[in-house]
Amino acid sequence: MRVERIAREAGVPLVWRPFLLGPIFREQGWNDSPFNIYPAKGRTMWRDLERICEKEGTPFRRPSRFPQNGLGAARVACLAFSEPRLPDFVRAVYRANFADDRDISDVQVIGGILESLGQKAGDVIKPAGEAENKERLRLQEGEAIRLGIFGALLLTVGEELYWENDRLEDAISLAQLTVG
Amino acid sequence: MRVERIAREAGVPLVWRPFLLGPIFREQGWNDSPFNIYPAKGRTMWRDLERICEKEGTPFRRPSRFPQNGLGAARVACLAFSEPRLPDFVRAVYRANFADDRDISDVQVIGGILESLGQKAGDVIKPAGEAENKERLRLQEGEAIRLGIFGALLLTVGEELYWENDRLEDAISLAQLTVG
Repeated sequence: MRVERIAREAGVPLVWRPFLLGPIFREQGWNDSPFNIYPAKGRTMWRDLERICEKEGTPFRRPSRFPQNGLGAARVACLAFSEPRLPDFVRAVYRANFADDRDISDVQVIGGILESLGQKAGDVIKPAGEAENKERLRLQEGEAIRLGIFGALLLTVGEELYWENDRLEDAISLAQLTVG
Repeated sequence: MRVERIAREAGVPLVWRPFLLGPIFREQGWNDSPFNIYPAKGRTMWRDLERICEKEGTPFRRPSRFPQNGLGAARVACLAFSEPRLPDFVRAVYRANFADDRDISDVQVIGGILESLGQKAGDVIKPAGEAENKERLRLQEGEAIRLGIFGALLLTVGEELYWENDRLEDAISLAQLTVG
């Protein structure tokens, strides 16, 4: 919710790169979110997220299903890769999942999000599921694993990896030095 | 390194509670540090720590052995529980481990730290290893697991848990409200 604004204010170009967490987690031997596998940590992480969102004024409701299957959404994001409408779509999917407790694996929900952003759902959802685009997501996935990415949101600035909301400002500061 | 100063400036009382991470990790099914079990994440966490310390001006050198056996140090800390010299001892052990790359499982190293803080090593190390004090650490350990603690540094403010350096200020702010 914050990264686009902060990057713009700093004059730093930002490239969104959609990937799935599932294969990344499987690389670590997990078949579920670590929030579920390690409930003591998960409990504090959910509470932490609640506190951050309260502080930021970002709507948040703990989803009744977690994690959800984001494959369809990731494919749509991949199809929109490098298009200026991508960030709006990503934010809307995150809001659906983490504020409105909707089922983002439901093609109707993704279609509704696309329509709300002025897209024809039919124009997007079919090509998103075609072989060429599926392959695009797989390539992104391989690149994420190659970069040593272990979670989301993860920012890369050159060779440096910055993990999560807490490090946004540090990442953007480094990027500013690099750009400047 | 920061918590004592920040708490003092905020007028918030701070109680240090030593415990071992080993039994906490075993509760989660780990027999090693997650930095070692999940090397992709571990790599970024070490780099993150390096960047934080650089920013804060805190000396840091990645230890050649990690994790180290902190049982002896934890027992000494437990013996000093609620004594004003405890924070100095803890900081000195962390410096030995994370700045000077010393072997903190070595009784000579712990003895040297005690002497540098004006204690007679012999007066402390023997009672630290006696049954009564060992039991004290076990009680602390049980309490940590009961509270849902999954790592260190973890701060508790009433029922709220705050994890790590990033949340220090938030924890102290809440404590200030509670105290005030």
